[in-house]
Amino acid sequence: MLDRNVIQGRGFRNVVDGGRVTGFQLQLRQPNYRGTAGSLLDGVEVVVDGERVPDHVPLWTIQGRTLTLDELRASTDVRWQLDEPVVITVPKPGGLTTGVHRIEVVVHLRRPYFPPAVSRTTFTAAATGVIVPPAPGGGLKFGVSTYSYTGDIYTLMTLEDVLADVADMGATGIEILGEGNIPNYPEPDAAWVDTWHGLLETYGLTATNYGSWVDTEMWRDRSLTAEEGAAQIRQDLRLAKELGFSSVRPKFGVVSWDLEPHPIWQEAVERSLDLAAELDVVICPEIHAPTPIKHPVTQAYVDFIEKSGTEHFKLLVDTGIFNTAPVLELSEEIEVEDGEIPMHLRPLAVPMSDLVEVLPHVHFIQAKFAEVDDDLHDLHVPWAEIITTLQDNGWSGWLSSEYEGRRDAYRGADQVRRQHALIRSLAARR
Amino acid sequence: MLDRNVIQGRGFRNVVDGGRVTGFQLQLRQPNYRGTAGSLLDGVEVVVDGERVPDHVPLWTIQGRTLTLDELRASTDVRWQLDEPVVITVPKPGGLTTGVHRIEVVVHLRRPYFPPAVSRTTFTAAATGVIVPPAPGGGLKFGVSTYSYTGDIYTLMTLEDVLADVADMGATGIEILGEGNIPNYPEPDAAWVDTWHGLLETYGLTATNYGSWVDTEMWRDRSLTAEEGAAQIRQDLRLAKELGFSSVRPKFGVVSWDLEPHPIWQEAVERSLDLAAELDVVICPEIHAPTPIKHPVTQAYVDFIEKSGTEHFKLLVDTGIFNTAPVLELSEEIEVEDGEIPMHLRPLAVPMSDLVEVLPHVHFIQAKFAEVDDDLHDLHVPWAEIITTLQDNGWSGWLSSEYEGRRDAYRGADQVRRQHALIRSLAARR
Repeated sequence: MLDRNVIQGRGFRNVVDGGRVTGFQLQLRQPNYRGTAGSLLDGVEVVVDGERVPDHVPLWTIQGRTLTLDELRASTDVRWQLDEPVVITVPKPGGLTTGVHRIEVVVHLRRPYFPPAVSRTTFTAAATGVIVPPAPGGGLKFGVSTYSYTGDIYTLMTLEDVLADVADMGATGIEILGEGNIPNYPEPDAAWVDTWHGLLETYGLTATNYGSWVDTEMWRDRSLTAEEGAAQIRQDLRLAKELGFSSVRPKFGVVSWDLEPHPIWQEAVERSLDLAAELDVVICPEIHAPTPIKHPVTQAYVDFIEKSGTEHFKLLVDTGIFNTAPVLELSEEIEVEDGEIPMHLRPLAVPMSDLVEVLPHVHFIQAKFAEVDDDLHDLHVPWAEIITTLQDNGWSGWLSSEYEGRRDAYRGADQVRRQHALIRSLAARR
Repeated sequence: MLDRNVIQGRGFRNVVDGGRVTGFQLQLRQPNYRGTAGSLLDGVEVVVDGERVPDHVPLWTIQGRTLTLDELRASTDVRWQLDEPVVITVPKPGGLTTGVHRIEVVVHLRRPYFPPAVSRTTFTAAATGVIVPPAPGGGLKFGVSTYSYTGDIYTLMTLEDVLADVADMGATGIEILGEGNIPNYPEPDAAWVDTWHGLLETYGLTATNYGSWVDTEMWRDRSLTAEEGAAQIRQDLRLAKELGFSSVRPKFGVVSWDLEPHPIWQEAVERSLDLAAELDVVICPEIHAPTPIKHPVTQAYVDFIEKSGTEHFKLLVDTGIFNTAPVLELSEEIEVEDGEIPMHLRPLAVPMSDLVEVLPHVHFIQAKFAEVDDDLHDLHVPWAEIITTLQDNGWSGWLSSEYEGRRDAYRGADQVRRQHALIRSLAARR
């Protein structure tokens, strides 16, 4: 699907030619209600951060061909269809800086079926776009979770659109929700599995972590048994492996406000470890606010790792535990008693020294966040400290963006780009 | 794609069982960020026009099975996926009245991974829905143009979603824009043509009118020749026929404020008439405001019909000519000089007696409109008079909805339902 705004979220980037940045590009969808022959296109003005580029300057890439305005006016065999965006290339030596830019476009079309005095029609659109720098080298890898697109996926975007969006921002890892993104879960048909692998190849993405659940209170009258819990984990391990994922995060039902997992967790994991080893898929319990690192729940996981000596049970850290300010915009509704801020939203501000202690056991980081502003400042998460700590301690692995802020249409895609611009810039400092 | 609102636009209808209306249905998408086992669903309250139905009453149809809440709680093999809506059936003898209803839902899900005190989660949603009566018998047939979905198609809805929407409201005709809805126009690949025919069959739709253009000012330095115009018409006639359409509306470039077509129109049509006859596709010029029926442009078309004796050139009437009030919300941008209301927006209020005079030549009616309010009152178009006139004069053919009001997301789909509820009710009076 295309974005509803004429200015598309995908495709805004600097253009590199022969090692030099020569300009920038953006993509537009057809603003008219019908497709239009190239000869009826009559220029596009582009204004970025107030700097105006006249309508005859940008190049148009349309149906695979790149044309000047004069070439477009003389063209006989290209047209701007409703279902195909065009790429507008604007010359600008050095390109645009990393970060958020204000973009306006004025598209001119000639419409012969309008009275001559008004047949040169003007369509305007405005948006913000984010220039995301390439991922720096080093041990940190940059991915995105489909969770970031909650509310938009299946409504505004297909699963393929999400993968295309992730690839468009130069991320290379994709994390999914098993019971969420797999059609006919837990039994996708073989054709869909093939499609999935095809998408990974098309978009150059690595399948990273697979989110799963062990719904211990599935039944109203009893909890799951350990064997039932293990069966759930094993089902997801097999499915994750089939789809190319290297870890599974089982989210257990909890029994307390500080997210103590149901007591079956340990036996359910024990009964799944042989399969995890056989498949070489790591089971990753999630360290998630309001549970900090220095807490019996985390300690129990670490004890389990150390006692069992397994290589297939490691920690997944959700960066919400490092928040230094509360996220007061709930991303979804929960019942709150007495209007009090729920415990899980109070900032834990876990110190970096705690992270360092468990870092050898950390397999995966869910880069949870709620808002990065126009100056690439995260309102809640201290990314500079986190990135520095990971680099100082030689950690390597995935940072997988989990946007969990307001679910306005298209906001997730924009916010993830901002976060990647921020954390890649921080990682590139050394 | 699913609608972004949890309450879907499609699927809101009365339920008929054994000839009696026993209740109503609506469709919901999963409000949680993940799919959920049926046993974790915990009821849905439905409030329509303030009348509340308790959460244990509605039936759930989920993955093809219809279950009570108790059956759902005990179920082991159904789940509410993110990409599959459920159908909620509410018993209500006699059902809901034709027209617009205010709907609220409160969905309860149990989420074991939330602390027990808040694990029964509430998701609320509100919307308006339209009960559209079945199409009455008689000569009037009820269709919809894809133009009604401008801005939403290819962004929020695929072409298939549009056809599904049209069928969902009980319409049986589909009108398209050739250069707009045909991928790779004018040369769709054979697979797409097969897909198109498959969609018509799946959704029980008849291909009605195919909108085309003769862009006489395609080139900046000269107009199209009559033969070039004819080549364009013939190309669209062939493509329309291949896709099953029975008429083509060529929109010619115009040379004046009152939409006088470029002088090549007549020769271009003459050069296309043999092919139109061979294919049995009717060429329909559009009578569109600000051109009324009593006008040289319309008269020239009528003269052409009468002189040529052709059966393959007839009129298409756009109901905007009957407007009794100006449509001041522009649906798209045009350049307006001096802030004056453009002539094409001034209401013409063409009298019904004028319509009666040309009715024998009218092949197709584009039921243009801009707003039908919550009481099924059209703010601009006198539908009661139009429908009565058509029926009194024994006209038979398609009324094809062309919504042309504000392009807010999903508004077209809602407005077309309102219009169909209105015009079908009027047509059913006799």
